[in-house]
Amino acid sequence: MTGRPDSAGPEKPPIPQTTVDAFHRGRFHLVQPRGRGHRAGVDAMLLASLVPGGATGRLADFGAGSGAAGMAVASRIETIDVVLVERSAHMAQLASESVRLPQNAGFSGRVTVLAADVTLTGRERLVAGLEDAAFDHVIMNPPFNDAADRATPDSLKAEAHAMSDRLFERWIRTAGAVCRPGGQLSLIARPQSLLEILGACHNRFGGLQAIPVHPRPGEDAIRVLLTGIKGSRARLTVRPPLFIHDGAEQAFSVEIDNLNNGRAFIERKSAHG
Amino acid sequence: MTGRPDSAGPEKPPIPQTTVDAFHRGRFHLVQPRGRGHRAGVDAMLLASLVPGGATGRLADFGAGSGAAGMAVASRIETIDVVLVERSAHMAQLASESVRLPQNAGFSGRVTVLAADVTLTGRERLVAGLEDAAFDHVIMNPPFNDAADRATPDSLKAEAHAMSDRLFERWIRTAGAVCRPGGQLSLIARPQSLLEILGACHNRFGGLQAIPVHPRPGEDAIRVLLTGIKGSRARLTVRPPLFIHDGAEQAFSVEIDNLNNGRAFIERKSAHG
Repeated sequence: MTGRPDSAGPEKPPIPQTTVDAFHRGRFHLVQPRGRGHRAGVDAMLLASLVPGGATGRLADFGAGSGAAGMAVASRIETIDVVLVERSAHMAQLASESVRLPQNAGFSGRVTVLAADVTLTGRERLVAGLEDAAFDHVIMNPPFNDAADRATPDSLKAEAHAMSDRLFERWIRTAGAVCRPGGQLSLIARPQSLLEILGACHNRFGGLQAIPVHPRPGEDAIRVLLTGIKGSRARLTVRPPLFIHDGAEQAFSVEIDNLNNGRAFIERKSAHG
Repeated sequence: MTGRPDSAGPEKPPIPQTTVDAFHRGRFHLVQPRGRGHRAGVDAMLLASLVPGGATGRLADFGAGSGAAGMAVASRIETIDVVLVERSAHMAQLASESVRLPQNAGFSGRVTVLAADVTLTGRERLVAGLEDAAFDHVIMNPPFNDAADRATPDSLKAEAHAMSDRLFERWIRTAGAVCRPGGQLSLIARPQSLLEILGACHNRFGGLQAIPVHPRPGEDAIRVLLTGIKGSRARLTVRPPLFIHDGAEQAFSVEIDNLNNGRAFIERKSAHG
């Protein structure tokens, strides 16, 4: 999905700082930084697929980066307004450029960018524009694959780092504050974060539904998709897994391909269904 | 698996209070109470399958009931000694009768019964025979399907009840005390107990490996199998799921049938594998 041109000649052209990349088979585009860091991919598209078709009201995309997940929701669901919340001024700038791309004109009137740190608390959070009970949906794909994490191959150090960060605790605390009662939290995470996530959701979001995502049948899950409802008391369920690839194929499974391209979404199972 | 005889005639024979039931295709037998309550089934056999072939030392079966899971381990693994720990004097008596059955003579010399409450703490626990670091394995299948649970269809009441019980917290606390460093905890539970279980394992058992158990592909998990290592700092993994049935078949899937009959076991994946 990179827009990087081939540069084989002896006189290389200047390399642009950003690329414009198509998602959902061209139904929306993103301005993204060059290189690996922060570039959106399947994680963001799977996160977006957790918001059901027909959703209404306002959605906050926490740590939106260049806006991949939030834009995927806005382009797929015509009845929802999206706020891309991003702490990094640079990434928020890219998100604004993404919104202004002519290719996104069909839905960009429903997308705004809010440069704010989702870990703010109390009055600072309100002043930053993250008001209480102001959203019907919160989605989050925290930066768990950042350079800081990749730089610590020692799993003990990495785990200690992750736990002392308590990133999910802080992000989900804010999600609980800005989400209206009955509103939905959706997130994607690594399985190792489950304890922190479930603990942070306790007494905030209930009716949790977890979907393990495995590279292939027979392999360990590399991600967990999770949704919950603000104030629900329903029990946690573990739903059927997703497999990114079928068997030994390198291509996506049909199910993942449909989710990745915005042709399908993941519906929550009724708590009493 | 019930031993209940047909009783169609007008003069019914006296109904015995217990039955003797074959497991693992006759490789061990259990004395069990008549009726539904406390009768061992697939849950106990799946729990037993979490102890790997070749395991050595001493194993404690917490809440052993009539001894199904512990006896399944003892009959399958010739190198392990098993202590069936059961609070109910009646069930401990049945477990003792199971151990003395002539059908179990091949391994019953390695099985003992300890009538003790695993939720005891401090000196009371030690006096009851649950000594510190005395076991290489602890397995548990807490009574989450008891009558008290079935009697509260209201999920809110049931959840509040389960959380106030904090049964897993108390059982896993004791498991952490009696297990030697590097020893293994194995348990079977409902998905809704995951938060309590992961929280109780934190700082006691690490390298947690969770296996969701689904009735069929496409259906929500009804159980989770979980193992952990005392003192490990490795991260939680979600391993490939188990499906009890294939498609619409009523028969067990081959994988479940092999585990249920003691012909296979579930090996932990190396933390660095």
